[in-house]
Amino acid sequence: MTNCRKILTGKKIEVKINGVVIDKKNPLIIAGPCAVESREQIITIAKEVKKLGATALRGGAFKPRTSPYAFQGLEEEGLKYLKEASEITGLPVVTEITDQKYIEMFEKYVDVFQVGSRNMNNYTLLKALGKVKKPILLKRGMSSTIYEWILAAEYLAEFGNTNIILCERGIRTFDTYTRNTLDLAAIPIMKKETGLPVIVDPSHGTGRRELIEPMTMAGLSAGADGVIIEVHNDPDNALSDGLQSIYPIQFKKIVEKIKKFMESEI
Amino acid sequence: MTNCRKILTGKKIEVKINGVVIDKKNPLIIAGPCAVESREQIITIAKEVKKLGATALRGGAFKPRTSPYAFQGLEEEGLKYLKEASEITGLPVVTEITDQKYIEMFEKYVDVFQVGSRNMNNYTLLKALGKVKKPILLKRGMSSTIYEWILAAEYLAEFGNTNIILCERGIRTFDTYTRNTLDLAAIPIMKKETGLPVIVDPSHGTGRRELIEPMTMAGLSAGADGVIIEVHNDPDNALSDGLQSIYPIQFKKIVEKIKKFMESEI
Amino acid sequence: MTNCRKILTGKKIEVKINGVVIDKKNPLIIAGPCAVESREQIITIAKEVKKLGATALRGGAFKPRTSPYAFQGLEEEGLKYLKEASEITGLPVVTEITDQKYIEMFEKYVDVFQVGSRNMNNYTLLKALGKVKKPILLKRGMSSTIYEWILAAEYLAEFGNTNIILCERGIRTFDTYTRNTLDLAAIPIMKKETGLPVIVDPSHGTGRRELIEPMTMAGLSAGADGVIIEVHNDPDNALSDGLQSIYPIQFKKIVEKIKKFMESEI
Amino acid sequence: MTNCRKILTGKKIEVKINGVVIDKKNPLIIAGPCAVESREQIITIAKEVKKLGATALRGGAFKPRTSPYAFQGLEEEGLKYLKEASEITGLPVVTEITDQKYIEMFEKYVDVFQVGSRNMNNYTLLKALGKVKKPILLKRGMSSTIYEWILAAEYLAEFGNTNIILCERGIRTFDTYTRNTLDLAAIPIMKKETGLPVIVDPSHGTGRRELIEPMTMAGLSAGADGVIIEVHNDPDNALSDGLQSIYPIQFKKIVEKIKKFMESEI
Repeated sequence: MTNCRKILTGKKIEVKINGVVIDKKNPLIIAGPCAVESREQIITIAKEVKKLGATALRGGAFKPRTSPYAFQGLEEEGLKYLKEASEITGLPVVTEITDQKYIEMFEKYVDVFQVGSRNMNNYTLLKALGKVKKPILLKRGMSSTIYEWILAAEYLAEFGNTNIILCERGIRTFDTYTRNTLDLAAIPIMKKETGLPVIVDPSHGTGRRELIEPMTMAGLSAGADGVIIEVHNDPDNALSDGLQSIYPIQFKKIVEKIKKFMESEI
Repeated sequence: MTNCRKILTGKKIEVKINGVVIDKKNPLIIAGPCAVESREQIITIAKEVKKLGATALRGGAFKPRTSPYAFQGLEEEGLKYLKEASEITGLPVVTEITDQKYIEMFEKYVDVFQVGSRNMNNYTLLKALGKVKKPILLKRGMSSTIYEWILAAEYLAEFGNTNIILCERGIRTFDTYTRNTLDLAAIPIMKKETGLPVIVDPSHGTGRRELIEPMTMAGLSAGADGVIIEVHNDPDNALSDGLQSIYPIQFKKIVEKIKKFMESEI
Repeated sequence: MTNCRKILTGKKIEVKINGVVIDKKNPLIIAGPCAVESREQIITIAKEVKKLGATALRGGAFKPRTSPYAFQGLEEEGLKYLKEASEITGLPVVTEITDQKYIEMFEKYVDVFQVGSRNMNNYTLLKALGKVKKPILLKRGMSSTIYEWILAAEYLAEFGNTNIILCERGIRTFDTYTRNTLDLAAIPIMKKETGLPVIVDPSHGTGRRELIEPMTMAGLSAGADGVIIEVHNDPDNALSDGLQSIYPIQFKKIVEKIKKFMESEI
Repeated sequence: MTNCRKILTGKKIEVKINGVVIDKKNPLIIAGPCAVESREQIITIAKEVKKLGATALRGGAFKPRTSPYAFQGLEEEGLKYLKEASEITGLPVVTEITDQKYIEMFEKYVDVFQVGSRNMNNYTLLKALGKVKKPILLKRGMSSTIYEWILAAEYLAEFGNTNIILCERGIRTFDTYTRNTLDLAAIPIMKKETGLPVIVDPSHGTGRRELIEPMTMAGLSAGADGVIIEVHNDPDNALSDGLQSIYPIQFKKIVEKIKKFMESEI
């Protein structure tokens, strides 16, 4: 499969966020709500997750939603709140960009540009993001093969940006018990095939709060360089993804387990 | 499921291309190459398929390709050639738009804006196309559920455009004998659920030349209002999708079968 | 793919049920309830479907059910009722065998041994059925590839029985609108690859009553040599598969459409 | 979902093999070749894996193979060799039973009856195994939902046997990079839903030697009570599954990691 790639051939590529290298020994812990709902909400959660050990803040301002009648995000206003939360806590901001036309706007507020699952094969967007300097969090398409995911990363690289963090977030299968099927084997595969850091998203990967902890730990054991978790101060009233968002108290426990795992050197 | 929709509730919606209504009795027969490769190629094929009974011309100018190193299309130049082929033959042009930034450009050359499988859930694009007046050919996402496809159409409708032609083009499954699995049951389902015309794409739906004829006929028997077929004057040297493109002689036979089917009133 | 087969290499194999050849021009129309529920029920339905044009009777006596607490079938008693219904109507009996230990019992009552979807890769059963002389209706496994299905037929052939009728009954995919996804392209593929007759099961293939008619016609247009349909005199009170069973009045209309299709020679 | 079950309602059930309880703290480590190929081969491997830390011996004597022309196993002769290897090493034997007719034979040689992926919904087999006293290793069907898997276990329980060890071995999806997609979230789900021990099979779950170690560790982190791994003394010349079988030296490293993981109490 390597013959279809020119840049991402498996040689290790160091990726930094605001100067901090991401790897297994220094795992990225991105936490925050599914969507930015208000200035107060995102600042509250940012402070909380920072205190508990998060190393970056997530939160959607542009939300690609299946229904046109679902909450679509606060858009630029949401980005401003994220920026403010970032300034207060020192956490870099990771948030999703849904079209190349927003790149200039995102440059002002965002530290890591997230390409969501639905846009992994939006090649117009990938080509444009190839020209951005900041790191890109490239989620796997929900029905993308390993091969397609590798080549999506290669698009970014070919157009100039190799600051790529890959994220396994579950694939669509026949089972409906979980929201998606988390394909953890993709973690060692993608690390070896591309040389890039890979993180795991147990929130979208399972869609169920009680599975976030075991799937975080399983992801790290599979070799993940970090995790992205939906944490909400009030999951039961979240505007989206409430069922898969965990409480701060659960996040606290997960961070402690992550630290213990790091120290054990397994 | 109807309660999640406000506009496409199943009541029949008449869709026209350049004044011609599309329905089972007057099936749309879109034919042409996967990609516009040159001025000569598209004009030659356009004349050929027009002569054999096509009612619209297809051909990609912006090609979303899995690999950044594959042929990406002639872009605006390709659109100009399509326009010229259309003026010569009288066939309306159906071609894929991959980003909202091209809408103004497409308005000059194109009769039907195609949303490809990879962009069915590109909601930024759908919202923008909702403001376009021309008909939209909305292909099913390769891994989209019926429900997601209905709501993608609802996005177009909600933003102002109900001139929508749906296209079943196969879904991704575990089998690899065919490129995709053509889900023909989706045809009667989508007609009933949305009230919109639905066509079938046996070329992408199977990826195999020998299956185009039986799957075209099966699609019509399932209730399709038309078909979109890749026809190439020289499939063995096509720049893309050669294996699924049929020869003009095969297209001739299919059109004859379609006419016979129409007359039989089954 | 042919190199993995010794017997079913694509050369046409004529299959007969009680002396009657099955092919496109003389399509097999198997009808009856999901399960034999009582002597009266199966005789009533057998008479009804015979009158309306069925050419064989279906009905399960051994039911493989997902739950151990669901109705498991009348077993040998059910086979006796099927035999009696067959003697009254002249319709041959098609019914599922779930284990090789029942072969001797089935020999007494049954004309066509059905291998259900769950047993397509029960190789102990296939080897034993290879020694049977009567025709085998080999359903595709719900998650079987084309390749695996071909080789399941090859098992029967290798052990001595080439009287095989293949049946496409839908595969398991991510979509949940229909019970399965009917893969109609498998019909021309299997006919060409194996040389055997292929029929379609729109009842299990869709799980929805309103889709039986269009999917029957689509199956025939794709080249099917027949159809197997669940018909019940009282679907709303059926012990199993009520939602996908059609009323006799609907079956009547389908048979009329099948005849019209045959006459049209499309 | 609990209302469809009468016995496996989630309350913890202790399962023993030859008197030894299986749980997270005392993980089951089943190792051995895909198939028993000869007396010498199985005894050699059994001694090797015993020395390296295995707690049970695997090896197929009855092999369900996709092709009738592939090696089908040594059958009873293979069971005898397994028994001999067990007597030499003290390791209990885990091997697959493919039909209820072999139960009496298996009783003589085997400690744990394995129900393979292809037979998870062979209900005739499950009912018969319900009457067996020895433990059953119930693999998940390659396309079985969580719900179907739970009910397959309930069949065993309903017919009398609750000595069930569940085994996640990967499901069939659209991706082809790995042989199956290992669904590790199924581990905490099945433990909670049924109360039974659950182990992981990274060999079939990935089909690739280099992924056995990370997927073993990921499985344990997800809560698995053990692992089943294909180990061969000469993988390159194995009669089946050579690519996914590991060398003894790799198995040694995995056992060491398992022990380290156990001690770390993560």
